[in-house]
Amino acid sequence: MRLIVPLRGVVQGRGGLFVGSLIPCCIFYCLQLYLKRRSPPPPPDSDSPRTSSPSTASPVGLSPRAVPLTEPLVSQYYIGLERAKTDPYDRISNKDGIIQLGLAESTMCFDLLTRWMSDNLMDSLMMKINEGEFDIRRIAMYQPFEGLWELKVAFADFMSRIMGGNVYFDPSNMVIIAGGNPAIEVLAFSLVDHGNAILVPSPYYSGFDRDIKFRTGVELIPVHTRSSENFTVTVSALEQALNEASKRGRKVSAILFSNPSNPVGNIMSRETLHDILKFAQEKNIHIISDEIFAGSVYGDKEFVSMAEVANSSECDKSRVHIIYGLSKDFSLPGFRAAVIYSFHQDVVSAAKKLVRFSSVPVPVQRILVSLLSDTRFVEEYLAAHRERIRDKHVRFVDGLKRLGIPCAESGGGLYCWVDMSGLLTSYSEKGELDLFERLLSVAKINATPGTAFYCVEPGWFRCCFTALADEDIPMVMGRIKKLTEPSRS
Amino acid sequence: MRLIVPLRGVVQGRGGLFVGSLIPCCIFYCLQLYLKRRSPPPPPDSDSPRTSSPSTASPVGLSPRAVPLTEPLVSQYYIGLERAKTDPYDRISNKDGIIQLGLAESTMCFDLLTRWMSDNLMDSLMMKINEGEFDIRRIAMYQPFEGLWELKVAFADFMSRIMGGNVYFDPSNMVIIAGGNPAIEVLAFSLVDHGNAILVPSPYYSGFDRDIKFRTGVELIPVHTRSSENFTVTVSALEQALNEASKRGRKVSAILFSNPSNPVGNIMSRETLHDILKFAQEKNIHIISDEIFAGSVYGDKEFVSMAEVANSSECDKSRVHIIYGLSKDFSLPGFRAAVIYSFHQDVVSAAKKLVRFSSVPVPVQRILVSLLSDTRFVEEYLAAHRERIRDKHVRFVDGLKRLGIPCAESGGGLYCWVDMSGLLTSYSEKGELDLFERLLSVAKINATPGTAFYCVEPGWFRCCFTALADEDIPMVMGRIKKLTEPSRS
Repeated sequence: MRLIVPLRGVVQGRGGLFVGSLIPCCIFYCLQLYLKRRSPPPPPDSDSPRTSSPSTASPVGLSPRAVPLTEPLVSQYYIGLERAKTDPYDRISNKDGIIQLGLAESTMCFDLLTRWMSDNLMDSLMMKINEGEFDIRRIAMYQPFEGLWELKVAFADFMSRIMGGNVYFDPSNMVIIAGGNPAIEVLAFSLVDHGNAILVPSPYYSGFDRDIKFRTGVELIPVHTRSSENFTVTVSALEQALNEASKRGRKVSAILFSNPSNPVGNIMSRETLHDILKFAQEKNIHIISDEIFAGSVYGDKEFVSMAEVANSSECDKSRVHIIYGLSKDFSLPGFRAAVIYSFHQDVVSAAKKLVRFSSVPVPVQRILVSLLSDTRFVEEYLAAHRERIRDKHVRFVDGLKRLGIPCAESGGGLYCWVDMSGLLTSYSEKGELDLFERLLSVAKINATPGTAFYCVEPGWFRCCFTALADEDIPMVMGRIKKLTEPSRS
Repeated sequence: MRLIVPLRGVVQGRGGLFVGSLIPCCIFYCLQLYLKRRSPPPPPDSDSPRTSSPSTASPVGLSPRAVPLTEPLVSQYYIGLERAKTDPYDRISNKDGIIQLGLAESTMCFDLLTRWMSDNLMDSLMMKINEGEFDIRRIAMYQPFEGLWELKVAFADFMSRIMGGNVYFDPSNMVIIAGGNPAIEVLAFSLVDHGNAILVPSPYYSGFDRDIKFRTGVELIPVHTRSSENFTVTVSALEQALNEASKRGRKVSAILFSNPSNPVGNIMSRETLHDILKFAQEKNIHIISDEIFAGSVYGDKEFVSMAEVANSSECDKSRVHIIYGLSKDFSLPGFRAAVIYSFHQDVVSAAKKLVRFSSVPVPVQRILVSLLSDTRFVEEYLAAHRERIRDKHVRFVDGLKRLGIPCAESGGGLYCWVDMSGLLTSYSEKGELDLFERLLSVAKINATPGTAFYCVEPGWFRCCFTALADEDIPMVMGRIKKLTEPSRS
């Protein structure tokens, strides 16, 4: 009773409506807040009713968040890969088949790998304990999911080696993980909350979408770069993208990029890396540097790891996280072997927990310990890999040049970034997709169009050349040439 | 102006305070609702501010959802495993070390595995293409993440074989995945939305918590069973748990259980499985049946797969999903090889997408194709595995019986479920944890207490016996005996 009296008084005086409604409104609002905090939070991405609704008629459904996973992937990256699989080129058995330039894999040094495996595979897997008796325990039994310590040491040494010995990697900052895909997912989950965002300089590798969006609920925001700057990202572009995200209420928690860039193949300069680190420091966000092509550098430009920049900077390096793996530089995608390297001890701890879902089987770890520790072979392999990639790149780019087709300036990666805008029937996304289709059906080549990488300029295509035999390059050029000639139909 | 007039009139009449505050309250409320719907939804599990807050002083943080992953795991299951690792028993070098009975692994048939690996490992990995030349492509290159078709066929045949040939598994319903942990996570993500729940008959394997709670945001609801019913779940208990969950607004989307049960080792009867399927049909929920110990059956009771029951039932079998793997029955946890088998095509599709984060490397797949296809060896191995587990079980249980310690009736698994309530100083959780500690520090044995498995009756412990040498069993009994004797201190 006493509580109501003052209100009544105010209501009946001057300004009665305003104050007389404000106070009960506040009470009503607080009541709602109280009730809201007591109720359980709603599930994210869910439109389903919260109570179980027995229904014997309709078949049981998936969780709403998994429903998109039942649909086919629509990017031209996947469409091209699948199309090429339906009619794959083979020099002997299917000469008119589709040539796969869509997959970044390399067969260039399989002669060396075959030799090493023939000589060492058995010994690396099965160590003899007594006279002639193998020890099955070292491959069959449980081992720490985060990876064998010996493998971390070997990986750290190998990474340092391919990066010119300019950076030391501490094995205790490392988690061994079954490929780049889970490495990216684990970092996205650990650094960025559901509904928050990551800035990604574009054109960027299509796989980032899949690896991050399938489960983590994190948004990727492309930060467009231009051919006029050879697709190099600037801090002002990052700043602008972050501000625009903030305006629409999106919190940006990280920057993700591949270096050497996938699909362009350009290498980030030390200065650019410093600028990005400084920017990340200012905004208090993370950096994920995907350096999976670090050992596939063929130009004159030096590759610099973000780890090296972090070590030499005054910035807080705990925001820097590196991804590396053996699928590209060691041509072993079938081995599913990668690492997360983080300067943040909590990120290492979280990754150690999550890697139980993405651990590398012990037999594969044993093979890799032997392989990466064989420094004589590693040096021989790396030298051959670089020499052969340089040679193959020259052959491929020269072939295109003779057709009047230029490539972006690049220094690493298993591909080149080809400017086919001269072959477009219209300078637009539609024109690019038409060319993609003509490449597949007329030239019988699967090259991935820029649209799949969020490139804003039409006509750019990624062509992976490291699984091509030298003798097939002229044929690829001959096929592309068909599209440069006026149609005779 | 006109809008305010009627309010003012009401305020000045009878009941002025009530109506005069209600109407502006409603307007205020509607305004809030409008503003709320225009703003983006809050991230789940997040207490962080949504705007980026530049802070150069404080180090950068993890996503709020990853913070719990930086903490140590507190279950006695993990505590015991870690304690045993600090001072591991070895018959020669550390006789007084802690004996590990906490990990369900088996070394019983390593003689057979060693022989097979010695004879076949190299050929299974490296097929010769020409005279003496190995084909590195078949292990080094990309293969479908969902697993090689040959391995699916071999797995289907093997599963059918260990289940007495009573059920046929269709390889096209199968996804090969790197262990039981990701298999469970992928199913939980795909079948149950964030914030929804799964019913799990308890005592249940502690690992389910970890595998499901780390990332999927799914709640596990234990459905308690009792020793008086030998820990068998009933439909009425499931129904009651589901109703209680509904009352607190929790939607139940699935039932998860291991069969043979982990930790009890009992085998579900065909009737129980039928009842559960009928219940799931009525409630329109999924069933996840973890059958990873199906080939480790030693009693007289027949093992029946939920797949067999689904096939023979009139219920919609698309709700049934099976997990199987080689870590237990084939003693190969280091190989990280398991399968998801689902009757629901959309679940198979979703799992095929998600398995890119948990794929089995191709070299391991090649070894397993050879191993599982070697039916003569498989038959020999399975017969030996069953005979040895039966023998080891008898030795272990008899040893306990002589100490006056009974076990639950069981028929499968690499462990037994031991009633040590007679050794408790108090019949309570505290008493159980005291005994756990005395087992570790006095008897120097790591056995996992029931608390870790959500057992409601104190004094039960899971003891894994299949990594114990026969000659060590009397010593284990001797150590336990110490605790049965009155303290001399």
